[in-house]
Amino acid sequence: VTRPSPGPPVTTGPSLAVGPGPEPDLEDALRASGAQVVDLASADGLVWTDSDPSSFPDSLPERITWVQLPAAGVERWLSAGVIDHEREWTSAAGAYAESVAEHAVAMLLAGVRGLVRQSRSQTWDRPVAGEWVGTVSGARVAVVGAGGVGAAVIARLASLGASCVAVTRRGQPVPGAETTLPASDVATAWTVCDHAVLAMPSTPQTRGVVDRRALRELGSRAWLVNVGRGDVVDTDALVDTLREGELGGACLDVTDPEPLPDGHPLWSLPTVLITPHVANPPHHLRAAYREFVAENVRRRTTGRPLLGPLNISAGY
Amino acid sequence: VTRPSPGPPVTTGPSLAVGPGPEPDLEDALRASGAQVVDLASADGLVWTDSDPSSFPDSLPERITWVQLPAAGVERWLSAGVIDHEREWTSAAGAYAESVAEHAVAMLLAGVRGLVRQSRSQTWDRPVAGEWVGTVSGARVAVVGAGGVGAAVIARLASLGASCVAVTRRGQPVPGAETTLPASDVATAWTVCDHAVLAMPSTPQTRGVVDRRALRELGSRAWLVNVGRGDVVDTDALVDTLREGELGGACLDVTDPEPLPDGHPLWSLPTVLITPHVANPPHHLRAAYREFVAENVRRRTTGRPLLGPLNISAGY
Repeated sequence: VTRPSPGPPVTTGPSLAVGPGPEPDLEDALRASGAQVVDLASADGLVWTDSDPSSFPDSLPERITWVQLPAAGVERWLSAGVIDHEREWTSAAGAYAESVAEHAVAMLLAGVRGLVRQSRSQTWDRPVAGEWVGTVSGARVAVVGAGGVGAAVIARLASLGASCVAVTRRGQPVPGAETTLPASDVATAWTVCDHAVLAMPSTPQTRGVVDRRALRELGSRAWLVNVGRGDVVDTDALVDTLREGELGGACLDVTDPEPLPDGHPLWSLPTVLITPHVANPPHHLRAAYREFVAENVRRRTTGRPLLGPLNISAGY
Repeated sequence: VTRPSPGPPVTTGPSLAVGPGPEPDLEDALRASGAQVVDLASADGLVWTDSDPSSFPDSLPERITWVQLPAAGVERWLSAGVIDHEREWTSAAGAYAESVAEHAVAMLLAGVRGLVRQSRSQTWDRPVAGEWVGTVSGARVAVVGAGGVGAAVIARLASLGASCVAVTRRGQPVPGAETTLPASDVATAWTVCDHAVLAMPSTPQTRGVVDRRALRELGSRAWLVNVGRGDVVDTDALVDTLREGELGGACLDVTDPEPLPDGHPLWSLPTVLITPHVANPPHHLRAAYREFVAENVRRRTTGRPLLGPLNISAGY
């Protein structure tokens, strides 16, 4: 018997459907990790590739026991009502963590080292520009939401000489963080930290948690970086605080509203850098998702816990 | 007997003059490290604080056996003719290495992650902005000039998942680098690396070494970062290469000419970020210099080699 698929022999891989359309590269990766790729009617699992919940089937065959979604943040999937308790659901949380963490660190450095302000200058003014330059080394940074992205941010900041205060839902210690606070004590992070990186999901508990008071407590030398979800920050308060010079600056890969409309004040404030939700750049998404799903196929085949399990009650 | 100075007792510290003017904080630091601070006429060493060689004395008392200069790069001091072979001269090379390295890494990330291009955008265009985003993780970076700054850049890039090809004068292996090339093989670095960070001094051998051919070999996705000296890059070739899209972009903390005049094309190219020689920001300079000189006082007192010895024949 010859086996066409590469990799070690696998005999108990799942039968997976891929939707909504065919995805040859993804299907090859699934096969290489031991799955059979089949029609939805004969599948016991479904790997979805469309980031818009509206294209998702209204109902799924009963024998589907696992659904893999392509998003890292699933709040739209939860509110669309497609998630049920009848089967196991996994998000792609963590699939894009390394790239998102690198983006967050790039943004924090760009803010703290004065590059954001300098990028709007067209004249050599060393005394003024010098005042814009701080150092991440020696700074204390709040990393709020210490899942895959937060943990990867902490590792990178530690190697740059910063210390990190992690904030997680329950405050269980995060490796590499100087301290970990539970979400109920997040206000402490704003007062003891020099800067903040937000990498938390959008949930009823996190929405608007970075309010006017939080921003003021971070202070006039602090840079705020958001690579999680835009609505955890009160945008109006952010604009006001920046205009009044009560916050050093903000680098945002996610915004509220999103997309950020043309003419919004955040586009023109000199202490703001916006990137349009590209911390995991589109051209990296598919490869990263492929690797993530292949790992989940291997885990399912060998009975290990899947990556990215949805926590429906917590809302992420 | 009571001793007013903190730290361990020191009995053989040098007698140092500070010039051109009094510097109370520096003098306190010198005393704390075991030196006596005295007039030039009775000093056996001189600690200079003015970065402009024109204010330096035309001649020094014979008993001065050590002169500490405040600059990390001493080409202007060499060409001004103030350096003699009658005594030991030290520069501040390395004093500012950590901050300069952080600036270099911030600049490389800002280029590669698309932040430089994005900083000129005022509209949410995910497909276009996504194309600007690359990753430093997995990239191979040439670090040319692997003194204190280069070594600190390599350490930081390694922790971000990049591999580094170091280039040094003689090619002696640099810790953390994948490979080290001698300066005579620098052309190899342009062809095998994705990006380049320049941290070398200005010498007859380095001036103009990053020429049109080097820039083209780096290529249209490559970012060039310069935190060393502006004249190691052929500025006209850089402008041309960027205009033709043959180089991805450039982040320059040093330029040629420097200061970069208003209206120079580098100010307005969308793939260029200029910071006006602030990688060691002025407000950090004095503290960093103080710590550096104090260490040299301790070394001189205990007979260890000084940091930053001038290599007059090599020109740095």
